[in-house]
Amino acid sequence: MLEHVKQEVLRANLDLVKRNLVILTWGNVSAIDRQTGLVVIKPSGVEYDNMKAEDMVVVDLDGNVVEGRLRPSSDTPTHLAIYRHFPEVGGVVHTHSTYATAWAQAGLSIPNIGTTHADTFHCDIPCTEEMSREQITMAYEAATGDIIADAFVGKDPMHTPAVLVKHHGPFTWGKSADEAVYNAVVLEEVARMASITVALNPKVEMNADLIEKHYERKHGANAYYGQKK
Amino acid sequence: MLEHVKQEVLRANLDLVKRNLVILTWGNVSAIDRQTGLVVIKPSGVEYDNMKAEDMVVVDLDGNVVEGRLRPSSDTPTHLAIYRHFPEVGGVVHTHSTYATAWAQAGLSIPNIGTTHADTFHCDIPCTEEMSREQITMAYEAATGDIIADAFVGKDPMHTPAVLVKHHGPFTWGKSADEAVYNAVVLEEVARMASITVALNPKVEMNADLIEKHYERKHGANAYYGQKK
Amino acid sequence: MLEHVKQEVLRANLDLVKRNLVILTWGNVSAIDRQTGLVVIKPSGVEYDNMKAEDMVVVDLDGNVVEGRLRPSSDTPTHLAIYRHFPEVGGVVHTHSTYATAWAQAGLSIPNIGTTHADTFHCDIPCTEEMSREQITMAYEAATGDIIADAFVGKDPMHTPAVLVKHHGPFTWGKSADEAVYNAVVLEEVARMASITVALNPKVEMNADLIEKHYERKHGANAYYGQKK
Amino acid sequence: MLEHVKQEVLRANLDLVKRNLVILTWGNVSAIDRQTGLVVIKPSGVEYDNMKAEDMVVVDLDGNVVEGRLRPSSDTPTHLAIYRHFPEVGGVVHTHSTYATAWAQAGLSIPNIGTTHADTFHCDIPCTEEMSREQITMAYEAATGDIIADAFVGKDPMHTPAVLVKHHGPFTWGKSADEAVYNAVVLEEVARMASITVALNPKVEMNADLIEKHYERKHGANAYYGQKK
Repeated sequence: MLEHVKQEVLRANLDLVKRNLVILTWGNVSAIDRQTGLVVIKPSGVEYDNMKAEDMVVVDLDGNVVEGRLRPSSDTPTHLAIYRHFPEVGGVVHTHSTYATAWAQAGLSIPNIGTTHADTFHCDIPCTEEMSREQITMAYEAATGDIIADAFVGKDPMHTPAVLVKHHGPFTWGKSADEAVYNAVVLEEVARMASITVALNPKVEMNADLIEKHYERKHGANAYYGQKK
Repeated sequence: MLEHVKQEVLRANLDLVKRNLVILTWGNVSAIDRQTGLVVIKPSGVEYDNMKAEDMVVVDLDGNVVEGRLRPSSDTPTHLAIYRHFPEVGGVVHTHSTYATAWAQAGLSIPNIGTTHADTFHCDIPCTEEMSREQITMAYEAATGDIIADAFVGKDPMHTPAVLVKHHGPFTWGKSADEAVYNAVVLEEVARMASITVALNPKVEMNADLIEKHYERKHGANAYYGQKK
Repeated sequence: MLEHVKQEVLRANLDLVKRNLVILTWGNVSAIDRQTGLVVIKPSGVEYDNMKAEDMVVVDLDGNVVEGRLRPSSDTPTHLAIYRHFPEVGGVVHTHSTYATAWAQAGLSIPNIGTTHADTFHCDIPCTEEMSREQITMAYEAATGDIIADAFVGKDPMHTPAVLVKHHGPFTWGKSADEAVYNAVVLEEVARMASITVALNPKVEMNADLIEKHYERKHGANAYYGQKK
Repeated sequence: MLEHVKQEVLRANLDLVKRNLVILTWGNVSAIDRQTGLVVIKPSGVEYDNMKAEDMVVVDLDGNVVEGRLRPSSDTPTHLAIYRHFPEVGGVVHTHSTYATAWAQAGLSIPNIGTTHADTFHCDIPCTEEMSREQITMAYEAATGDIIADAFVGKDPMHTPAVLVKHHGPFTWGKSADEAVYNAVVLEEVARMASITVALNPKVEMNADLIEKHYERKHGANAYYGQKK
């Protein structure tokens, strides 16, 4: 079932390790098959070293396990909420990558202060609001997905495909699992650069024209970065 | 004698190197066999490259060498004090890992400001009190174990299995040597994230409900992180 | 056509990866053949892993593609402007290396506060002025080259072969592509050291005599660093 | 001539690369044969990759080349001054390792604020005084050795075998080239820890009793760290 997706999700999970975004069993990637509405996700708390495609778990959008011997990631309800709220998303990544997590712990959005940021993310990377006691103690992981959606009211989640969950860490997404991993790599680098930048100059801001220019030259209607497709 | 434990302690010591927690000959791991009360520990000042299981030293809880050609780690009395004070501990790790040591040098506890911390450590990682001249000049390493115990009065050492010895560095523990190494890995990452976080926002604090949620979902009676055992 | 230059440019691009100056497809190196006025440059947005010499693109100084199946780097007009403004330059490198980019994002020149800096760069590494809306929205990449030239009015660009483009990142150059890569390596290390230095002591300045001594012992008429050539 | 010493000096130079203390051609190690008063040192500005024992240069204590096809390191007069001033030194290392160099650039001594420091270095790592115009423009490298000696007036250079040359970088030494490399490794780690520590707590100081305890347990008359020799 969904063998191709399982392979993609496995490879994307292993990419997180190669890219130095996760240690131990932290981090998880999923992908959705929008035709069937089924999501393939990493199992919970399993070592990366011996992980196989058949260990990936298939769940439906309500979180029912459809196939798989293992429990899905404990963050599955957050992934599912992202797929429900953002219909263009094809893949989701969660990591505890060091600098992005530090910004999340600080409760601060990552400001768009450089073209490295603007090349991939149109706006600041938003940090979510504090969760209420009810959200934390009831359906915590699903509520995490909901406060992520709250952070994108009035914004296009495909233009800034990343969020910091306050006190927790980053989620990124994309049209595919691979694109979500790419965005996780960029996010960590952007978070690291921003932390060094604000230490050097706490008042820095970037010109809005420059933000538009860089985002548009790569993602706009007349984009001219990369090769024609 | 205790061949299985020597193998475990050797492997755990080598893991410290692989995990980038120690350089040169710094760091040491021990494990206890609670049936016999015997502790297996790394020899003092020996290179990791050629270390063998038979180089591990067996001592009793009073520090008498029971087996082994080499001197045990100079930190042995600290390990023994931890085993005596905390009866559930099965393994102990000491490192000079960079960020945890920097917090110890700063004389500051590492605040619980993120779910990465709360997933493994229930409370702040305490920094011990200053030692007295008597403690330093008399039985220094045993006294180090005693001030560690002082830092856990009224707290469960198995819920927050790590400490910073002021001006010195971290000790971690667990039910086994492997678990103590795992906790040393998490501690260093948590220390690094916390140093970046407080540079971004010195006043950060985390919601107590969120701390409970994350600790409980992994370690509580109804834990649902990882696979069923 | 220009096979030798394509090989040099390919190798120099791969060196950026080995030296940890670029991730993903970021960064680009070019070299010019001053006899023909033709420039060889990396294609835009292509993975480093499978890049071949024949993928390199040949353009003239007006940006017309003379040979190559692929689009040249989107930063090509900046490279060309540097070649036009600075006639001694033989190779140009652009990266988003972490610390140099952080200084660029901060909008600050990197001060010459150590002999590591003075051994390679005679002056502070200048940060360019803010670009105007016209420059950004019209011929942005060529305008980037022009503001780089503005930063060197009255200075010898071969004595301080590096610049920070504000909010963007570093460009370096040299008599060859290899020398430009060498300067990119030194720039990143100098940027990193300077960020640590100013955190320790924000008011640091270096003695002008010492700057002269170090620059001259390596690059002056009576240089005595390295082997005789 | 002095084949054994050349082998030791070559290996020690390559160790600097393995230990991530040098990049490019930066850094140099020498050793002295006290019987003949001859010093073996790395050649100037040569790549580490293909360096051979026969490339090492033999000089006398006045700096005359006694054997070798290549120019000795441009820092040779500093090494020689250290050998002349400190008669117990058998090996000298110079690097531009990142954190130690940042402290040197900041013009600050590295405070002894942790047992990692006190285990190897008895006192703060001193930063030298500013050099005069005369010292810089006349015999600069020899004068560098002299201001190093000035920093140790009234102190035992074998108890704190490291110095920061202001605006330049660290020199370390020891009874042998290997010991000088060991001290360079510890210095860089201590410099890194100290920079993180003072960012967390700028007012930190360490108890003098603890400094004595750690230095003495490893280097004192009744040392008990490591194995008996």
